[in-house]
Amino acid sequence: MRATIIHGPSDIRVEDREYPTVLQPTDAVVKVTAACVCGSDLWPYRGVKPTHEPSAIGHEFIGLVESLGDQVSTLAVGDLVIAPFVVSCGKCPQCLNGVTVDCDRLAGWGGTDDAGLPVDDGQGQAVRVPLADSTLVKVPGITEPDDALRASLLTLSDVMATGHHAALKAQAGPGRTVVVVGDGAVGLCGVLAAKRLGAERIIAMSRHADRQAIAREFGATDIVEERGDEGVAKVRELLGGVLADSVLECVGTKESMEQALHCVRPGGALGFVGVPTGGAEIPLRYLFDTNISVGGGMASARSYIPELLADVLAGKINPGRVFDVVMPLEEAPEAYRAMDERRAIKVLLVP
Amino acid sequence: MRATIIHGPSDIRVEDREYPTVLQPTDAVVKVTAACVCGSDLWPYRGVKPTHEPSAIGHEFIGLVESLGDQVSTLAVGDLVIAPFVVSCGKCPQCLNGVTVDCDRLAGWGGTDDAGLPVDDGQGQAVRVPLADSTLVKVPGITEPDDALRASLLTLSDVMATGHHAALKAQAGPGRTVVVVGDGAVGLCGVLAAKRLGAERIIAMSRHADRQAIAREFGATDIVEERGDEGVAKVRELLGGVLADSVLECVGTKESMEQALHCVRPGGALGFVGVPTGGAEIPLRYLFDTNISVGGGMASARSYIPELLADVLAGKINPGRVFDVVMPLEEAPEAYRAMDERRAIKVLLVP
Repeated sequence: MRATIIHGPSDIRVEDREYPTVLQPTDAVVKVTAACVCGSDLWPYRGVKPTHEPSAIGHEFIGLVESLGDQVSTLAVGDLVIAPFVVSCGKCPQCLNGVTVDCDRLAGWGGTDDAGLPVDDGQGQAVRVPLADSTLVKVPGITEPDDALRASLLTLSDVMATGHHAALKAQAGPGRTVVVVGDGAVGLCGVLAAKRLGAERIIAMSRHADRQAIAREFGATDIVEERGDEGVAKVRELLGGVLADSVLECVGTKESMEQALHCVRPGGALGFVGVPTGGAEIPLRYLFDTNISVGGGMASARSYIPELLADVLAGKINPGRVFDVVMPLEEAPEAYRAMDERRAIKVLLVP
Repeated sequence: MRATIIHGPSDIRVEDREYPTVLQPTDAVVKVTAACVCGSDLWPYRGVKPTHEPSAIGHEFIGLVESLGDQVSTLAVGDLVIAPFVVSCGKCPQCLNGVTVDCDRLAGWGGTDDAGLPVDDGQGQAVRVPLADSTLVKVPGITEPDDALRASLLTLSDVMATGHHAALKAQAGPGRTVVVVGDGAVGLCGVLAAKRLGAERIIAMSRHADRQAIAREFGATDIVEERGDEGVAKVRELLGGVLADSVLECVGTKESMEQALHCVRPGGALGFVGVPTGGAEIPLRYLFDTNISVGGGMASARSYIPELLADVLAGKINPGRVFDVVMPLEEAPEAYRAMDERRAIKVLLVP
């Protein structure tokens, strides 16, 4: 089969790999019908994260079940399934608490599972999925979604779940004012998630017309282009002299974390899902003095998918709008270039 | 009148001060019937916080309204009132959000109000209370509480409200497991607050038999004497192999903050009310990796008092048990010594 391999900075290739098979009785093999490039895939692409040897890459995909191990009980061959961005067991204390990203048997795509067996990456034609029952989520009654639905289902794998996580941790909800820092796919999904949770006023911080347009479509009531102190001042002005109840941080840099923190009112909440990089920190004394709550981290997509999926299938949310480019899998190198150069918000790859 | 003045480290004196009068139409003058020494009063006493000139001290008191300005509408002369540990206006955005500790017109006891007029300290015979309507809380139907009730009412001024704040921010509630780090009056009130909110299992970290006894009386199901990694291991053992859903940090040192953070399970919550000192910080990457939420700071006692007061008056909670010593105001120097040397948990002063 064909799959995407990263060889080093700016060196993405689509190569031949052995077709996966069921190795454990709890496995499924999934034929990928749609995959995509994540903002975090750009870290090794940009050399920010080292690539020591050629590695399979990609952790967001949906597809059709092709074969199953004997112990898989909730899935059938032919089912359309969504893969969250990590493998989880569904039985350990963390999974039972809904925190599947800290599962005792955690595994990522493109590496190995907890038995040391290889797991394929998402940006390829097929994937062996360990712990299939507890990892995959079946899309009921549909096997051939149209393009728009396919795109929305794919976002549940990561970006929409992550935006939802940020919104939950920021305590977005009815009557709340919200600021979203970051206008990538996750930030845009954060806008949509805040709207879905009932937020009253949603300010998207963005300088790009195309992203601003999607933010507005997703429920943003206001756009702020200013950054730093000017951005904070603009938020305060828009909200009648006070800062926001809820702020979603969807980037992870020192600057964006400060921007986000300084947009939260006393007693408000910050949800952060951007992986902290470049020295991003939050001074504890600042939290003490402002009574601001902070929470975030990786989204437990597996826990969130069922409720988000219901809204996607009911047509209530269309997070797939974050995909502005669709390419065949063979063009993965160009997909990375387009996202790296910010010519694309998010690229959907069709194997 | 007589009032407590700090002159420098270990130098507390009870001295003569001018009796307060109504200076603004929104003032009340309150005759103090009970006051107390706070753990935070020990910072200047120990020289950790400098004392540049003799200063009035004490921020927790209850008393009887003695005189009122023309614009005070909700109080009457003779009312028994609880003073939260800061003055607040009740009208600014922060007060309307329930975050009275960040009030636009914030003032503390023993300093000056926002008009620059002097405010008396709580450890004295009488206090001019600015913004009386929005600051004081009337105790309905009672003017002469017995000793036990008097003590419990006094805790609402600070320590019980602060324990409640920690428990709320730690998301303590039904079905949750809780760890409380710190066995001072606030930590003990944190145990009581967690119990009141319905927590299922409450582990108090304490090495003092007298404090352990009160913790158990307040609802602690387990006591852990170990500290550091051993303490974390003990918590994990007690909770069947996992860490706590909710942890209350009620000290503020680097060590106690680490102890608290490392007792929280992935996806759990930490409520911190100890003022961060000695380099206490929380690494953002740790929060990201563990999905732990953090919130805390000063408690908006004014917002919490009504519901806590209802439970005190109904006899549901008896937070006044944290007072293990009662002294006349004139013995304030000995009260400070007793608390500094940990001979007393908390001293109640009677003017």
